[in-house]
Amino acid sequence: PKRYSITLLPGDGIGPEVISVAKNVLKLAGSLEGIEFGFQEMPVGGCALDLTGVPLPEETLLVAKQSDAVLLGAIGGYKWDSNEKHLKPETGLLQLRSGLKVFANLRPASVLPQLVDASTLKKEVAEGVDLMVVRELTGGIYFGKPRGFSKNENGEEIGFNTEVYATYEIDRIARIAFETAQKRRGKLCSVDKANVLEASMLWRKRVTAMASEYPDVELSHMYVDNAAMQLVRNPKQFDTIVTNNIFGDILSDEASMITGSIGMLPSASVGESGPGLFEPIHGSAPDIAGQDKANPLATVLSAAMLLRYGLGEGNAAKRIETAVLDTLDRGFRTRDIYEAGTKLVGCKEMGEQVLKAV
Amino acid sequence: PKRYSITLLPGDGIGPEVISVAKNVLKLAGSLEGIEFGFQEMPVGGCALDLTGVPLPEETLLVAKQSDAVLLGAIGGYKWDSNEKHLKPETGLLQLRSGLKVFANLRPASVLPQLVDASTLKKEVAEGVDLMVVRELTGGIYFGKPRGFSKNENGEEIGFNTEVYATYEIDRIARIAFETAQKRRGKLCSVDKANVLEASMLWRKRVTAMASEYPDVELSHMYVDNAAMQLVRNPKQFDTIVTNNIFGDILSDEASMITGSIGMLPSASVGESGPGLFEPIHGSAPDIAGQDKANPLATVLSAAMLLRYGLGEGNAAKRIETAVLDTLDRGFRTRDIYEAGTKLVGCKEMGEQVLKAV
Ligand SMILES: CC(C)[C@H](C(=O)O)[C@@H](O)C(=O)O
Ligand SMILES: CC(C)[C@H](C(=O)O)[C@@H](O)C(=O)O
Repeated sequence: PKRYSITLLPGDGIGPEVISVAKNVLKLAGSLEGIEFGFQEMPVGGCALDLTGVPLPEETLLVAKQSDAVLLGAIGGYKWDSNEKHLKPETGLLQLRSGLKVFANLRPASVLPQLVDASTLKKEVAEGVDLMVVRELTGGIYFGKPRGFSKNENGEEIGFNTEVYATYEIDRIARIAFETAQKRRGKLCSVDKANVLEASMLWRKRVTAMASEYPDVELSHMYVDNAAMQLVRNPKQFDTIVTNNIFGDILSDEASMITGSIGMLPSASVGESGPGLFEPIHGSAPDIAGQDKANPLATVLSAAMLLRYGLGEGNAAKRIETAVLDTLDRGFRTRDIYEAGTKLVGCKEMGEQVLKAV
Repeated sequence: PKRYSITLLPGDGIGPEVISVAKNVLKLAGSLEGIEFGFQEMPVGGCALDLTGVPLPEETLLVAKQSDAVLLGAIGGYKWDSNEKHLKPETGLLQLRSGLKVFANLRPASVLPQLVDASTLKKEVAEGVDLMVVRELTGGIYFGKPRGFSKNENGEEIGFNTEVYATYEIDRIARIAFETAQKRRGKLCSVDKANVLEASMLWRKRVTAMASEYPDVELSHMYVDNAAMQLVRNPKQFDTIVTNNIFGDILSDEASMITGSIGMLPSASVGESGPGLFEPIHGSAPDIAGQDKANPLATVLSAAMLLRYGLGEGNAAKRIETAVLDTLDRGFRTRDIYEAGTKLVGCKEMGEQVLKAV
């Protein structure tokens, strides 16, 4: 049988619960396709801070780098919220992304027919939404230098960051976006603020220049403020969206919420080579941690993305995705997506039902 | 009678049509309160580029500075879209904001009972939304230096911008936000990305420090990605939002679209002293320019903000606002907010109906 090594990073809050479900689903779906997994669990985020004093221990990064793919639960919690920057759980996540060089973050947002009522948007606006945000993940203002605190010429304190993109960074994310659009409905919308920012002007120039290599993809450009509006006005107009790190952070969260079921949404972060990083888009939800209330489906679907985008195991991925839809069809719902007439279950029971369906 | 001088900047596209309506409404509402206006029309944006070669002629800025308040229509159009940065209509607008030192941009977004169906959000989510975004307007990444194009150490082209805030810039916008919240429902949500950006960490620190001066205001903090979600999930949770220039650009547009009627939304930009700048939040809509189809109400309501925030003439402002609501109650609608059972009118006729109501 084929064998892959998977690094599991349960993290904080509901992370361990949802990872435990996803691990079992991964095992079963794999075994049905003749795939075996070796799992190694490592700490990251708040739990790593408590254990080792840093949010991303060197060993965690090393193990992750040497594995075939990384599955992350969630990080963060009230306990570490007022930590200094280098001791924040979030910093561990940023170091992990940067350390694994996963510059392309793929965030699908689709409204499942079974869950269309969960959206706060009118049914006719929400139904059929199926878009993918391709967010640049290891550049821009998140990592740009110089950054920090200083004084201005009047002696007043300033805080500053640098939004910066080099041509190669734009080109490699644009390429992934064009290829993603090609495999979807052939429409790519590049989002920037090229009417104001030089970093965006270069972005637009390079994306435009690449379009001729993808004659089957229809490229458009949109300013970020307009994109934030259009996602509310008519999200169905979008197929694939490509944008920088900070705009992608904002717009992909907005797009997620438009589906109304962020407990369902996975994400994949991939680089040129080396293991990809797969994680649900929801947070660590410390308020419900350890109470068997979390929705594990976003992590289960992240495991499916891990199989498809991380290991090229499309068949096993398909098994998981079909099982999730089947479980929803059979009426099982966690708290966050519950409505009258469906069956309310906890995190573990939802996992059992998915296993049954696989 | 009291006399004020008003600079009118019709600008491009539908700008001249909506400004002409707003001017008449301003005149009438003023005269009923013993106020006289001297109007001076000046070019800005694309029309200024065509006339003078620059998007903000010196004389326009001079006249604007010497007046009591400035009312702007809209700027921009396809014709100038691919101009170089210093020859873009948008650059004229940024120079105007900076030249007038109007650092505080107040953008209300409320869902009028008459127009609740215009929102793409479910009725129960949209109705009753009444929020105000206080956006920092003359700092941050829009104006930060260094900016431009250069090469990195590998000789690759880079585009870069600087997000920077000094304590005095944060303090003055925070003060306006606290005071705005005080006059509203006493809730202020400061939006930043303090888990990643140093500029945001300083922002959060200063806003937090000011809270003790406003014990009657309940201050909360939210990350920008979460704010973009919460505006879709439950916009009613917000009263006053304060944020930086770029996040404010994105979130205020998102909030506008949640009302479903961006043809209705005004904005006010004010500084420490000197004339304020008042403008509808919609763009120049070149596709319908000159066709008498534009909705003039956003500009009419901007004129009301001019009276209230720019001149301290609350009574005259109230006259205009009441007249707009009355006109909607009588069923008049422009194309953008039309629904079956209401009376479709053009820009001019809408203006006549508001005048009647005043
Ligand atoms: C936790 C935070 C640093 C992170 C980000 O801003 O990238 C999160 O919001 C995300 O989108 O994964
Ligand atoms: C036209 C553009 C420069 C401007 C901005 O980004 O500030 C606009 O989007 C706005 O919000 O007024």
